[in-house]
This record gives sequence, structure tokens and C-alpha cells, in this order.
Amino acid sequence: MPIPITPSKIDKLTPIKPQGLVVVITGNGKGKTTSAMGMVLRASGHGLRTCIIQFMKGDLYSGEWDGVKLLGELVELHATGMGFCGLQDNRYTREQHRTNAQAAVELAREQMNSGRYDLLILDEINNALKLKLVDLEQVVTLINDKPERMHLVLTGRDAHPEVIELADTVSEVCEIKHAYRQKIEPQPGIDY
Amino acid sequence: MPIPITPSKIDKLTPIKPQGLVVVITGNGKGKTTSAMGMVLRASGHGLRTCIIQFMKGDLYSGEWDGVKLLGELVELHATGMGFCGLQDNRYTREQHRTNAQAAVELAREQMNSGRYDLLILDEINNALKLKLVDLEQVVTLINDKPERMHLVLTGRDAHPEVIELADTVSEVCEIKHAYRQKIEPQPGIDY
Repeated sequence: MPIPITPSKIDKLTPIKPQGLVVVITGNGKGKTTSAMGMVLRASGHGLRTCIIQFMKGDLYSGEWDGVKLLGELVELHATGMGFCGLQDNRYTREQHRTNAQAAVELAREQMNSGRYDLLILDEINNALKLKLVDLEQVVTLINDKPERMHLVLTGRDAHPEVIELADTVSEVCEIKHAYRQKIEPQPGIDY
Repeated sequence: MPIPITPSKIDKLTPIKPQGLVVVITGNGKGKTTSAMGMVLRASGHGLRTCIIQFMKGDLYSGEWDGVKLLGELVELHATGMGFCGLQDNRYTREQHRTNAQAAVELAREQMNSGRYDLLILDEINNALKLKLVDLEQVVTLINDKPERMHLVLTGRDAHPEVIELADTVSEVCEIKHAYRQKIEPQPGIDY
């Protein structure tokens, strides 16, 4: 096996002013939840503690549910949702989705205020807001009440302009191509 | 703690035709390597084995180096690079960067052909190609020689059009906002 040249020195950054960021990952492309999961892995490498609350998701298995278990006590994941509200074969009513999303917001607030986490991920909350399963005021209040040192990550397409305004870092993931358009099925490890 | 309603049934997808995908994550926004690391976490949850080869990166600590150790034997990471070639305070010559990137391509080829991995991530290879540290033909050959069931993920800005053409799924991560523009320092767990 070829051995690449090793750097003569490895630097390590340490911020003079540690600061909890608000990060929004939106857009129609693949890689929003995935990106949030990458932050979980990275944060775990630093020994930081993460809480993930998945809105909408919970009725369809995804690999990260078992992936985070490998990270041990550093990560807690709540897949609170019941699938994507409004999708053709989703078996729950809009009212059930809303009741559920409201409980998830309450859970987010309690976890955020517990002081136990360095990173709180609200996966698909942008989507839940767009679908009016949660209210703009609830999301804005969560952002404004965030503990100073805790990072807050909000994913999902159609992020609200006011949420974008309040965020420090915002990425839009745009679909250039997607395998499903070639009728390739979702593949474990990549798509779920 | 509020208990969200639990879905009455959790479905699990299984592709009728398992297929290794070529995924490209490009663009100027935050969340390309991060997204790849999310795929690592997700794949690990499925019990899949991953090899990560980081081009350019290796001289500056990033949390995923320790994060993947928590995933145990499922993941192997090679941070082969010596920083971003051409950046002002990078201490290596262009020739050193190229020699190194060439060894990393060779390593990628050997790992790919070993049959040991379900997922191979070539982090920042798009960038390395753009900077001519590796050649288009080398990258195209890697893609074309990919084992059918192995997923191949190529990250980094400025993905070559021919690489995009060969890929199944391509996302462009666009910067809408970034904390560093507000002079906020990179924060561990989020930015590195």
C-alpha cells in the first residue's frame, strides 16, 4: 500500500471565543439530514454531546438510527414523526401529524433547556414549519432562547426567510442529479 | 418529558436491485465533507464498511478523525493531504502536494479493488482535480472501474463536468450565509 507523505505538523484550532452557532441546511437536494449526521459524527469526535429530534421521520427506518448507537452515550436520537405529512400513502391525518410535531417542539425546548447538550439537531423542522405542523413563532423562540454555547442545526427544505435571517450559517443543497430520476431505488447507507 | 405519538408501524426499505451509487457533493457552501461523514454514520448503522481517503486534508485536526474511531472496525480513515495547496500560509510546495495526491489516488485504487468496502469516500478529490494534483483521467478511471455494489462518493468544490456526467446523484451545496463572514471563528463540532 502506498504511503502518502505525512504532514510534518498537525495543527489544531481552538476558538478564542467559543460560540454556539445556528446552522440551517435547506434546499431540494440530497444531503441535508446527511450533513446534520456528519456534524453529529464530527461533534462526537470532539467529545461533544448531541440530541437529535427528527420531525416527520419515524415510520421508515434509516441507518442513522443504528449509526448513532455506535457513538454511545454522546448521542440521543428521537425519531418522533410519522412520515411526510401529505404524501400519498402516508397513513396519518394532518391533525395527528400536528399533535405529534407539537410534542416534538416541546421535547426540543426541554432538551435545549436541560443544559445536557452541546449540539441540538432539529431534523426536517423547516419542512414541519412549511406544512404548518409547527408555527414560525415556536421556531423563532427556540432560536432566540438557545443557550449561548449550544449549537442548533435546523434542516429541511423550504427554510423560512426569518429562520434564515436568524442563522449564522446557511447552506442550500441543490439537486443537480438524483439517482431516483433514473428509476434507481433508494440504497441503504446512501439514501437511508 | 412529552411523549410524541409513536408510529403504529415502522417500515424498512430493501432495494430489489442493490446497486452501488456514484455520489458527487460539490459547491461553495458548508456541508460537503460533512455530508459524506453523515453517509459514513448512516452506512455504519447498516453494518456497511467504509474507507475514507481525504485529499488535501491532513495538516489540520478535524473532529471526524476521532469520530470515526467510535464506529470501530467499520471505518478506516486516511487523511493523506497536507492542507489546501495554494493557500497563503500552506507550508508545502505544489510538487509535494501533487506527489502526495498521486499516492492517495493509488491508495484509493488499491482499497477499491480490495473488495473490503461497501462505501469509498474520496474527500476533496474534486478540489484536487481542479488544482491538477490529480488528473481527470485518473478520476474517470476510478469511477469506471468501481465494483458494481460499492458506493463511491466524491466531494469538493468545482466538480469537473465529466465527473458530474458519470455520477448518479449530484448535489451542489451553495453558501447562503457563513458565520466566518461575520468574523465568527470556526467552531469545533460544526466547522471542524
